[in-house]
Amino acid sequence: MNKANKKLNAAIIIIGNEILSGRTQDTNVKTISNWLNTLGIKLDEVRVIPDVEKIIIKTINQVRKKFKYIFTTGGIGPTHDDITSKSISRAFRVKYTYNKEAYKILESYYGKEKFNEGRKKMAKTPFGAFLIYNPSSAAPGFFIKNVFCLPGVPSILSSMLGGLNTKIIGGNKVLTKTLSIRTVESEISVPLAKIQNKYKKIEIGSYPFFRLGKIGVSIVIRSINKKKIDQCYKEIVSFLKKRKIDIIKKE
Amino acid sequence: MNKANKKLNAAIIIIGNEILSGRTQDTNVKTISNWLNTLGIKLDEVRVIPDVEKIIIKTINQVRKKFKYIFTTGGIGPTHDDITSKSISRAFRVKYTYNKEAYKILESYYGKEKFNEGRKKMAKTPFGAFLIYNPSSAAPGFFIKNVFCLPGVPSILSSMLGGLNTKIIGGNKVLTKTLSIRTVESEISVPLAKIQNKYKKIEIGSYPFFRLGKIGVSIVIRSINKKKIDQCYKEIVSFLKKRKIDIIKKE
Repeated sequence: MNKANKKLNAAIIIIGNEILSGRTQDTNVKTISNWLNTLGIKLDEVRVIPDVEKIIIKTINQVRKKFKYIFTTGGIGPTHDDITSKSISRAFRVKYTYNKEAYKILESYYGKEKFNEGRKKMAKTPFGAFLIYNPSSAAPGFFIKNVFCLPGVPSILSSMLGGLNTKIIGGNKVLTKTLSIRTVESEISVPLAKIQNKYKKIEIGSYPFFRLGKIGVSIVIRSINKKKIDQCYKEIVSFLKKRKIDIIKKE
Repeated sequence: MNKANKKLNAAIIIIGNEILSGRTQDTNVKTISNWLNTLGIKLDEVRVIPDVEKIIIKTINQVRKKFKYIFTTGGIGPTHDDITSKSISRAFRVKYTYNKEAYKILESYYGKEKFNEGRKKMAKTPFGAFLIYNPSSAAPGFFIKNVFCLPGVPSILSSMLGGLNTKIIGGNKVLTKTLSIRTVESEISVPLAKIQNKYKKIEIGSYPFFRLGKIGVSIVIRSINKKKIDQCYKEIVSFLKKRKIDIIKKE
């Protein structure tokens, strides 16, 4: 990774007892990570923390200094356990208050009569925050400085990411090549380690799989440098041929 | 949660570029969390970190003081990117060395001739670590003090948890009741917040869902106190009846 790209990283903070308790399977990390890839931003850490104000404040204040972009998921709905907006306000030491634009959006979406206390709560953000629009169900997310707060419901979250493409400055896209081969990891560990040592700036991952009753390994090469990735790829293909290891799929 | 149970908590550290890059969907958190529930241990934090020695060492040394049990997943295979054992050794400042028992297990599983360098690597653990047996594919995990290192492959990981039941001291099981109802969150936010205020030690979560074209909310109540949970549950059912909100499912 070159210096310019070095700090274009991100962390995700999943705020949700339902993930920690094992009730709900998170899928938002994969969604956000794949979207970040298209922007040339590297996801460097994920944390899952409970719906506890003190922990949210402490975690946000730790990570927002360490990473370029922070994405939170969950806790921006209408119920008592939705405490993300309030906690983020406290983390930034700003007022937790009605956002006029969010208020208008929600009032017009629900109609004045149905705009009850719970729904009004969703119009509250940290003072000075900007909205992240929600094309699925009106209730917006928001961002303040480098902290972007998104809902936990996967379909709504993914519908909101597109609107952020112009708010986030990305970098060089990470290129990926994958070789799926018919062998076991221990058969390739020595030559692969040698290639990794030669190409120190390229990320080479080795992942065993078991599909249709057969085992295999996927070798994944990642880098922003097209020339280096192509060279490295060629060397891997060449040692696989020498060892007569079948390549099942090139991606 | 009572005082005795307070410290029976855990954290999971997922060591894996493949999760951060969005290539792989983690499912191990849900598996480990549900298993911890059966032991009466509360999962309090999850972190996903890259395959980088410095970061693994720093993270492990932070979290192992903060939580009763730490579970790591990933990075204990035969390839160059499998650096968990080495990094954990450095975190504890002990030698990274062949574990005699692991060596024997692997040698007899593969046979002397096929026990190559990559496979031998899987017999190395931090000095003084105890093995976690692997009924699926021989290569063991290990634990040192309160840090339990498991593989990343979900089917192998889940086959190894049973063997840990006697190594881990649990507590009172967390009891859960779930009410799935036909409404939207904003309709129940005020009465639900009142009940939460009354039962401060009970964890009440509210989760919207969309199933078979219909929306609804699941109210999840969690506590180790059976009496309190039953009281709280009754009060919720009673306000739902008053408001004529349909209960679709009781779990």
